[in-house]
Amino acid sequence: MILIPDSFKGTLTSQEICETMETVIGKYFPEAQIISIPVADGGEGSVDCFLSAVGGTKKQVQVCGVFGEPVNGYYACLPDGKTAVIEMACCAGLPLAEGRLNPLKSTTYGVGELILAALQDGAAHIILGLGGSATNDGGCGAAAAMGVKFLDSTGKPFIPTGGTLHLVRDIDTDNLSPLLKKAVITAMCDIDNPMFGKNGAAYIFGPQKGADEETVVKLDQGLRHLHTVIQRKYGRDLSDLKGGGAAGAMGAGMHIFLNAELKMGIQTVLDTVNFEEQLIGTDLVFTGEGRLDHQSLQGKAVMGIAQRAAALNVPVIAVVGSIGEGIKNIYNHGVKAVFSINTSAMAFEESRHYTRENLMITMDNIMRLYSIL
Amino acid sequence: MILIPDSFKGTLTSQEICETMETVIGKYFPEAQIISIPVADGGEGSVDCFLSAVGGTKKQVQVCGVFGEPVNGYYACLPDGKTAVIEMACCAGLPLAEGRLNPLKSTTYGVGELILAALQDGAAHIILGLGGSATNDGGCGAAAAMGVKFLDSTGKPFIPTGGTLHLVRDIDTDNLSPLLKKAVITAMCDIDNPMFGKNGAAYIFGPQKGADEETVVKLDQGLRHLHTVIQRKYGRDLSDLKGGGAAGAMGAGMHIFLNAELKMGIQTVLDTVNFEEQLIGTDLVFTGEGRLDHQSLQGKAVMGIAQRAAALNVPVIAVVGSIGEGIKNIYNHGVKAVFSINTSAMAFEESRHYTRENLMITMDNIMRLYSIL
Repeated sequence: MILIPDSFKGTLTSQEICETMETVIGKYFPEAQIISIPVADGGEGSVDCFLSAVGGTKKQVQVCGVFGEPVNGYYACLPDGKTAVIEMACCAGLPLAEGRLNPLKSTTYGVGELILAALQDGAAHIILGLGGSATNDGGCGAAAAMGVKFLDSTGKPFIPTGGTLHLVRDIDTDNLSPLLKKAVITAMCDIDNPMFGKNGAAYIFGPQKGADEETVVKLDQGLRHLHTVIQRKYGRDLSDLKGGGAAGAMGAGMHIFLNAELKMGIQTVLDTVNFEEQLIGTDLVFTGEGRLDHQSLQGKAVMGIAQRAAALNVPVIAVVGSIGEGIKNIYNHGVKAVFSINTSAMAFEESRHYTRENLMITMDNIMRLYSIL
Repeated sequence: MILIPDSFKGTLTSQEICETMETVIGKYFPEAQIISIPVADGGEGSVDCFLSAVGGTKKQVQVCGVFGEPVNGYYACLPDGKTAVIEMACCAGLPLAEGRLNPLKSTTYGVGELILAALQDGAAHIILGLGGSATNDGGCGAAAAMGVKFLDSTGKPFIPTGGTLHLVRDIDTDNLSPLLKKAVITAMCDIDNPMFGKNGAAYIFGPQKGADEETVVKLDQGLRHLHTVIQRKYGRDLSDLKGGGAAGAMGAGMHIFLNAELKMGIQTVLDTVNFEEQLIGTDLVFTGEGRLDHQSLQGKAVMGIAQRAAALNVPVIAVVGSIGEGIKNIYNHGVKAVFSINTSAMAFEESRHYTRENLMITMDNIMRLYSIL
C-alpha cells in the first residue's frame, strides 16, 4: 500500500497522517509493505516531507533572514545525488516574521543564497517550495543573491524589497551565477494567481503578510513597475503567467530571472518520488486532504494522485477532513471512495482537537471493511 | 442484503433510512435482492414499521383518546394472520397531548380498547409498543378497558389516572376478557426503569410529560400505592421489574394485569420478522442508529442485530449519526465496521438539516469501496 496524504491544514501534518494511517494498517496487515509519502505543499516542512518520502540528507547553511538578520537555513540533498529541495519559508517565511510582519521590507535574499549553496554543492535539479512567504519582493532578493543586479536611477545596484520595487530602473544579469546554466529549477506553486492586479500577489496575499489597504496598493504598484522593467529587459509579458503571484510574486521572479519552471506542487512530488514506479505491485493507495471539494478537481493533491494511479489501475481511497460540494467528478478520475474523519456532529473549533483520534477511528473502520470483504 | 436500521432520533425515521440506503445500493447492485426492515422502537410509527417490514393490513378503530376524547386508533394485522401490532402512542401518546400535557389526568384506556379489538379480531399474539406515552396511570386505563375493575374505598369501580391512583383500594379481575386466555401479549420496551422510586416512571419520565416537582412526587406516590394493592391482590413484588416503568408504568400494569411479557424492542422486531430465516443467503447487513456508544452494547438495535447475524456469519456494517466512546467491544459481537455520516465538521444544529444527504454520501462511498474490493 501507498500512503500519500496532503496535510490537514491547521490540524495534522502529512507526516502525522502517514504515521497514523501506518499504525492502523499495521494492526490488520502486519505483513503489508507500506510506502509512506507525506505530500509536501511547498511551505514550511516541505524539506522534511521529501526527506521522509525518499530519504537523503539535510544540510544547514547560514543565510540572510527575512529582515536581513542571519538565520539557519537548510536544504535537502536527495539520494539521487543531483536533486536539492529548498523551502523558501525557512528563511523568508511567515513564522520568522511573526510580530513584525512588513512586506515592504522583507526579503527573499536568503533563498537565493540557499539556491547558490545547493548549486555549489553539485545539485543539477533544484526543487524550490514557494509557500508560506512573508515577502512581496517579486523574488528580486533571491535573484540578487544569485548575481542579478537591480539598478536604481543613478545606476547604483540595490536589493529591492516590496517597498522599493518602484526604484528599479534597469536589470543587469551579467553576473548571474554560471552554475545556473547546468541546472534546472522547479518552483512548486499551488496557486494560479498572477504577478499583479486585483487577483495578484499583493491584493490576494498581501493582507496576511501584514499589508493594510494602502500598503497593498503600494506593493501592487511596485510589482507592476518591476514588470514594466522586465518587459523592456527580457521582451516578455508575464502578466498572465499562472502562479506568477506565488510567494509575493517570487513565482514570476524565479521564472524570469532563474528560468525556473512553475509546477503544481503535487506533480513535483509525484515526479520526484517516481510515483508510477512505486505504484507497480501496489494494491491500494490512501490519500487525503483537509477539505475535498470542487477546487480539488484543479491540481490539488488528491486529484493529481488519483489520475496517475488510475492510469495504472490502482484504486485510491481518500480520507479527508471534510467533504464539500461538487466532488462527484472526482470519482471519474481514479478516486474510488471518500471518507470523512468526522465521527460525530461537532463544530470544527471543537473537533479539531480530535483530528488524530478521528482519523484513527475512520481508518480503523475502513481497514475493518477492507479486511472482511 | 438486509437493511435494518433504527431511526436517527430527531432527523430520519428508520423507514426513511431504509429508502435512502436502498436507493444508493440500487445504483451499484441493481440486481441485488434487498430486504428492508425498518426497526420499530415501540413509539409512534411502530405499526407502520412492522407493516413496511413484513406487510399486513392496518385497521382503524375509534377509541378513547389520552384525555377521554374519541380518537382514531389503529393496529396492524400481520400476514401470519395471528399477530397484531399496537402502538400505545396512537391514542395515549405525547403528540396527542401537546399543549395540554397533564400526566395526572391522561389515560391509557384507548390502548385497552385496541387490544380488545385485536383479540376480537382473532389475534393470538399482540405486540404492544410502549413508547412516547403522555400517561402515568400504571396501565390501569388499559386494564380497565379489558375488564379489570379498580375499586375505591366505597367499593365503587373507577378508571384510575395518574392523579387518582391513590384511591384504588382493591382490584377485581373477574370480568377480565376471556379472550386474553388464548393470547400472548408482548410489550416492547427499551428501558430498564422500574415502576416507581427515584429511577422510576414518574421521576425519570414525568417531567417530559408535563409534571412539575410536586406532581412527580404525587405520581410516584400513586404508583407506590398501586403497587401495594397489587402486592396484596396478586402476591407479587414488581418493584424490581425491569421495564416496569415503561410508558408511565404501563409496563408493570400490562405485565401483572394482562400477563404481558416485557421484551426489548429489537428482540421483538427480530423475532417477528424471522430475522434468522432472512439471514440465510444474505451477504451483508446494514444497520444503524443515531448514536453508537457504550450504551449500545446493552440491548439497543445495532447490538441485537449484530449478535444474531454473527451467529450465522453474516457481516454487519453500522452507519450511524455519531460514534461515541467505548464502542470497541461492539466489534467482538458481529459489527464489522462503523461509519459516521458526518461529512464535515459541523454542529448538530446545522448538520441535522443535511442528515439524508450525508447518509446518502456515506452509503455511496461505502458501496463504492464495497464494489471495488
